[in-house]
Amino acid sequence: MLNFNFYNPTRIFFGTNRFDVIDRQIPAGARVLITLGGGSARRNGLIDKAKAVLGSRAVFEFEGIEPNPRFETLMRAAELVRSEKIDFILAIGGGSVIDGTKFIALAALYEGDALEFLRGNPKLKPSKAVPFGSVLTLPATGSEMNSGGVVSQGDGKFAFRSEYTFPVFSILDPTVTYTLPAIQVANGVVDAFVHTTEQYLTYPVDARIQDRMAEGILHTLIEIGKTTIEEPENYDARANLVWSATMALNGIIGAGVPQDWATHMIGHELTARFGIDHGQTLAIVLPSLMNVRRNQKKAKLLQYAERIWNISSGPEEERIDRAIEKTRAFFESLGIKTRLSEYGVTPGQIPAIVDQLKDHGMTALSETRDLSPEISREILEGAM
Amino acid sequence: MLNFNFYNPTRIFFGTNRFDVIDRQIPAGARVLITLGGGSARRNGLIDKAKAVLGSRAVFEFEGIEPNPRFETLMRAAELVRSEKIDFILAIGGGSVIDGTKFIALAALYEGDALEFLRGNPKLKPSKAVPFGSVLTLPATGSEMNSGGVVSQGDGKFAFRSEYTFPVFSILDPTVTYTLPAIQVANGVVDAFVHTTEQYLTYPVDARIQDRMAEGILHTLIEIGKTTIEEPENYDARANLVWSATMALNGIIGAGVPQDWATHMIGHELTARFGIDHGQTLAIVLPSLMNVRRNQKKAKLLQYAERIWNISSGPEEERIDRAIEKTRAFFESLGIKTRLSEYGVTPGQIPAIVDQLKDHGMTALSETRDLSPEISREILEGAM
Repeated sequence: MLNFNFYNPTRIFFGTNRFDVIDRQIPAGARVLITLGGGSARRNGLIDKAKAVLGSRAVFEFEGIEPNPRFETLMRAAELVRSEKIDFILAIGGGSVIDGTKFIALAALYEGDALEFLRGNPKLKPSKAVPFGSVLTLPATGSEMNSGGVVSQGDGKFAFRSEYTFPVFSILDPTVTYTLPAIQVANGVVDAFVHTTEQYLTYPVDARIQDRMAEGILHTLIEIGKTTIEEPENYDARANLVWSATMALNGIIGAGVPQDWATHMIGHELTARFGIDHGQTLAIVLPSLMNVRRNQKKAKLLQYAERIWNISSGPEEERIDRAIEKTRAFFESLGIKTRLSEYGVTPGQIPAIVDQLKDHGMTALSETRDLSPEISREILEGAM
Repeated sequence: MLNFNFYNPTRIFFGTNRFDVIDRQIPAGARVLITLGGGSARRNGLIDKAKAVLGSRAVFEFEGIEPNPRFETLMRAAELVRSEKIDFILAIGGGSVIDGTKFIALAALYEGDALEFLRGNPKLKPSKAVPFGSVLTLPATGSEMNSGGVVSQGDGKFAFRSEYTFPVFSILDPTVTYTLPAIQVANGVVDAFVHTTEQYLTYPVDARIQDRMAEGILHTLIEIGKTTIEEPENYDARANLVWSATMALNGIIGAGVPQDWATHMIGHELTARFGIDHGQTLAIVLPSLMNVRRNQKKAKLLQYAERIWNISSGPEEERIDRAIEKTRAFFESLGIKTRLSEYGVTPGQIPAIVDQLKDHGMTALSETRDLSPEISREILEGAM
């Protein structure tokens, strides 16, 4: 097991009818900004429910945080936080709204150039943020119980994290997610699955509990993935998806193990360039990455084949092949296409994607930092 | 899955050479009390290491927190905290020292009668505690990453918990535990195992991740238990034990599932009356409890038989019998005897133990609150 630090102070309120906690968790006299995406929270009545619980507190709204939230949008919200002297932000939405809210919370109190901070100048570290909580409406990113976010600016997607951007609390009510479109639920299943593999399909360090917990999430997603898409109001299936997605990225399964994240980094460029959904990009990249990186990941791929897909006989390379095919078939069973060509991308566009990776400094990816742009090209070609 | 709240703000620093974090985690001008057990921390040089890192801070020591720490001992330490105006407590020890430190931290600032609070008057709730951190020397209780403790007073053991008694930080360095006597390591393996079964062997609520995480801990303990006793300096085995013990009781596997704790409650009486080690009492009670409660726990016992012991064929009752025998054999493989008679307890003493359970209000135990004193008697008789 590798040395590690673990810290996660977010309070989770999981289950049905948990809105009352908003009143207990947000200070009585607070001026509250509710942050929102495209309006589904309004249509579903969640804003009215939240406002009812907030009672006499002064409440403001900022609507329009887009999927892959943009720096410029978030800076407008940060300005509103400053001008209205907001004390607490309540994000109602999925990963984009919560990620965006984290950035708003930092940017509103940040005295330097927030863009330079976002672009990763390590000397620029925020030392405070406006406290915020979340009501999760889309199980996928895990943002509701971690301190990281991804913000789009120009043609890039930039990841950030800060000690100060853990949600104070998050309400995870599976019934709130019943009305999601099937494609968003499917993307969420893939996102949680690949968050898990990024922290699991690396190389062995004898971290037995972390491996078994990761495998527990993968098994669960495989068991309930199709059901929760086809039966959105099946509470048990949806509850298992919601908690899987949270547990996949709250730090627990990643403590003390190597982490990859190359699938995400390559996927981000596909979203930035072609607008392909985040979950879809992961379903495109992962099977090809597993194939190209089969030597580096051999031991863990064999473990994955055996423990997840019950593939334990036959030559090793064949077991890995079968595990990759099972993974692809699982994504496709959710209605997610796994080939770049199925999204209208042509082989001739691959060099430009590779250039984009280079432009964003993504030249030494993976758990061993040896995944070069040349290898990214190979992965993208294999994903056609 | 049941509705649940989860909150755990303890910072974990896991691995070798982590003592430096003490300097970063304890405020610069703090007056620090180091709390200790029987002196092994002194002999191992841990106190000197901690003092070196604490530098110019005023440091006091309180030695002599006993196994199953006693109320009277802890109140003396609380008095020292008050008289020396201590700002931060650093516990160096195992579960007893950390449990005791939690109580000291509360009692020092508590204005009511600490004994009444301990004895469970629900109206008396502390609202503050002296902040404290821990250096864990014995993997077993999980106290290093939760807010609960057990304190002995009179002839009883009393459990408490408070929002204010999460350690601010805990240092988990597996190498610090290399010098432990084998019996203490074996007791720790059993303690972590039974903490897990208390949250797992109940009835199914379709909490798939929690079940799989619990199973991951059980598998890990079974795999590394004997090794870490026989090869104390095998880092990987010990690291897996340390993290298993922490994860078994930090709230993660217990979120959203029913919990039993009858094995612990009955075991506490055996410790209080006969001085049998806590881990040993659990190894005595659990196999018999599984047998007596086989109907209430049937579905989970069959799942346990299949997923942990690979027992999936044959009549159901026989599968349960075999799983119980495997459990008993595992404890015995660690050098822990599993029969009350092997500790010198006679059948004639059972009525007095049952009376003691009644005296302490332990009359409606288990996940279904229907484990009566009569059933406790049956469990104790089966454990002879």
